[in-house]
Amino acid sequence: MNFSFELLVEDKYTQARAGLIHTPRGDIPTPVFAPVGTQATVKTMTPHDLRDLGATLILSNTYHLYLRPGAELIADFGGLHQFMQWHDPILTDSGGFQVFSLEGLRQIDEDGVTFRSHIDGSEHRFTPEGVIGIQEKLGADIIMAFDECPPPDDYDYNVAALSRTHRWAERCRAAQRRQDQALYGIVQGGIFADLRAQSAEFLSSLDLPGYGIGGLSVGEKKAEMHKMLEIMHPILPRHKPRYLMGVGSPEDLFECVARGIDQFDCVLPTRIARNGAVFTHQGRVNLRNARFATDREPIEVDCQCYTCRTFSRAYLRHLIVAKETLALRLTTLHNLHFMLETMRRIRQSILDGTFTDYKKQFLETYRPIPEERRGGIGRNG
Amino acid sequence: MNFSFELLVEDKYTQARAGLIHTPRGDIPTPVFAPVGTQATVKTMTPHDLRDLGATLILSNTYHLYLRPGAELIADFGGLHQFMQWHDPILTDSGGFQVFSLEGLRQIDEDGVTFRSHIDGSEHRFTPEGVIGIQEKLGADIIMAFDECPPPDDYDYNVAALSRTHRWAERCRAAQRRQDQALYGIVQGGIFADLRAQSAEFLSSLDLPGYGIGGLSVGEKKAEMHKMLEIMHPILPRHKPRYLMGVGSPEDLFECVARGIDQFDCVLPTRIARNGAVFTHQGRVNLRNARFATDREPIEVDCQCYTCRTFSRAYLRHLIVAKETLALRLTTLHNLHFMLETMRRIRQSILDGTFTDYKKQFLETYRPIPEERRGGIGRNG
Repeated sequence: MNFSFELLVEDKYTQARAGLIHTPRGDIPTPVFAPVGTQATVKTMTPHDLRDLGATLILSNTYHLYLRPGAELIADFGGLHQFMQWHDPILTDSGGFQVFSLEGLRQIDEDGVTFRSHIDGSEHRFTPEGVIGIQEKLGADIIMAFDECPPPDDYDYNVAALSRTHRWAERCRAAQRRQDQALYGIVQGGIFADLRAQSAEFLSSLDLPGYGIGGLSVGEKKAEMHKMLEIMHPILPRHKPRYLMGVGSPEDLFECVARGIDQFDCVLPTRIARNGAVFTHQGRVNLRNARFATDREPIEVDCQCYTCRTFSRAYLRHLIVAKETLALRLTTLHNLHFMLETMRRIRQSILDGTFTDYKKQFLETYRPIPEERRGGIGRNG
Repeated sequence: MNFSFELLVEDKYTQARAGLIHTPRGDIPTPVFAPVGTQATVKTMTPHDLRDLGATLILSNTYHLYLRPGAELIADFGGLHQFMQWHDPILTDSGGFQVFSLEGLRQIDEDGVTFRSHIDGSEHRFTPEGVIGIQEKLGADIIMAFDECPPPDDYDYNVAALSRTHRWAERCRAAQRRQDQALYGIVQGGIFADLRAQSAEFLSSLDLPGYGIGGLSVGEKKAEMHKMLEIMHPILPRHKPRYLMGVGSPEDLFECVARGIDQFDCVLPTRIARNGAVFTHQGRVNLRNARFATDREPIEVDCQCYTCRTFSRAYLRHLIVAKETLALRLTTLHNLHFMLETMRRIRQSILDGTFTDYKKQFLETYRPIPEERRGGIGRNG
């Protein structure tokens, strides 16, 4: 096995951890934020851009790549790394979240899920074995077990789904053939403490190389998410990475790192960028706003990204209003830089023993979007 | 005056010329192809990308910038170079072509044109003096006279429009205040030899620093365009740059350089890129075509652009089919590289005395789009 997790430092005051995920394609310093490249591309970014931004892991999606361009085709090209020309680590999600989101277009049974493509309505079937087979063809460094993703607040549904997710995790493990991919299990259980504990215990017993935490990016309250993380923390194995799927916002990075999370992915920085919204240390701002029409400052004066080193808010607003696609790229670039740079600083502060100070300092100025205005954004892509 | 044209070499066998346009912002080696940045951005490209591509001149548009974000705002930012952060030479077209294209939304009189904005229907007026004032606010290095752009095959209309265009050119020259901008006149006259000769003679008498040639990018036959160029060639002053507006395709570069043209701009490479079409030395191909689905080759094996050095046709086709905006950027990058690199080779071949050979070699393999399938694409943007 070419994959391991090296725990370097555990914070004294919180559950924050700094480490290294060793993979055949190099080390991933943790905690890590992975930009989302659903369709074998992080929207608007070249691999060169992503490397410049310092991304060390990106995410792509089994469901989307299976449908288009197809796993066989990608395998024929030597795998996803070759196909998209990103030679650092990649994680593929299993497609569990995506097929369960196809409300009305999918049927679940004990063996798997039959669903219709959102592209052309054609019928397909995912089973735990099939999904592992697809992910082995895609060839990512980290692959995810196939799981069922029920609404987080439906207890009875979560009970039933959880045992199936556990049986599927075992089947995924049994189906795995390649030794150069780390298979993560996915803890489910909605917002229910007993189910989360039960799931964390069961999956820990499988001794997998890492653990995803699903079902916490779909609109539940932040306090509930934090409580679930606190419940799972002492149960999940200390020397395995913990990946909070589909999370999060800048404030989530701090709050969830403080609760033991090592790995994140989220479409937020790329998705809001496409609407003209950008991260600042005061919170999100929308550059479309008329008050930026004559603003000579960059998005953030101290930011070292190409967008901020080069362009005024007024110019960026002009591009957005004029519907120029360059706007999407420049705002995406800034938002990814913001997330990756914030994560680098979080990691350094853990290593330095100053995480609590940095967290406090960041959250003092950063104003999150109010909870009632924030919907779930779902797991990657 | 900080602007001059240095003629370095005239080809022995054709009218091809190689030279340098000296401007306050540096030299433009000619013949030159200028990428089009209608709205203060060459679509999908950063200034950094354009510099990497070796662009030495870009074009922007008075009509579009006047409407949005406004010439005053750009002036407040220190001009277009500062606003868009492109510090090499810029040319602004006068908006003549754009307002005359607003069929039904504009009224022409001797003094100028009243028109409605294509954005919000608001009423505006362009006069020669007003357009020079706007271009002085924008601050491009090369600015264009305000001209009337009639249908190229309507003789009577062209006669009337031509004398007005000439009076407007004189008014533009009289209105000019800034000494650091080169004002080009625009030769009109449709596809009529007598009118083209008359226009070239009149404008030459004004002793302007350069000459645009308008009205030859709107769907007339190639043979007619070539004939017009041949008629104007001996009349236009030898030591002034000649700019064929809104042209052209790769084959046009060769045919029109051979007829004495020094300067080109065209939306073609950026526009077709957005439909998935790319230039190759065999002609245009559309990457959307299913035959590229499994194609491991780059667009062109010998091409040195980032797209060709990095990605397969299959990957590019995947991005196009999946409607990923990265596709637009990668195809635009290749097409601009193709045009700029072809123009660099044309220039070198003129300097080396091998232009005719290079032209023959290029046109032997390059298959243009058949004339009957080719519409006019109009002057920039």
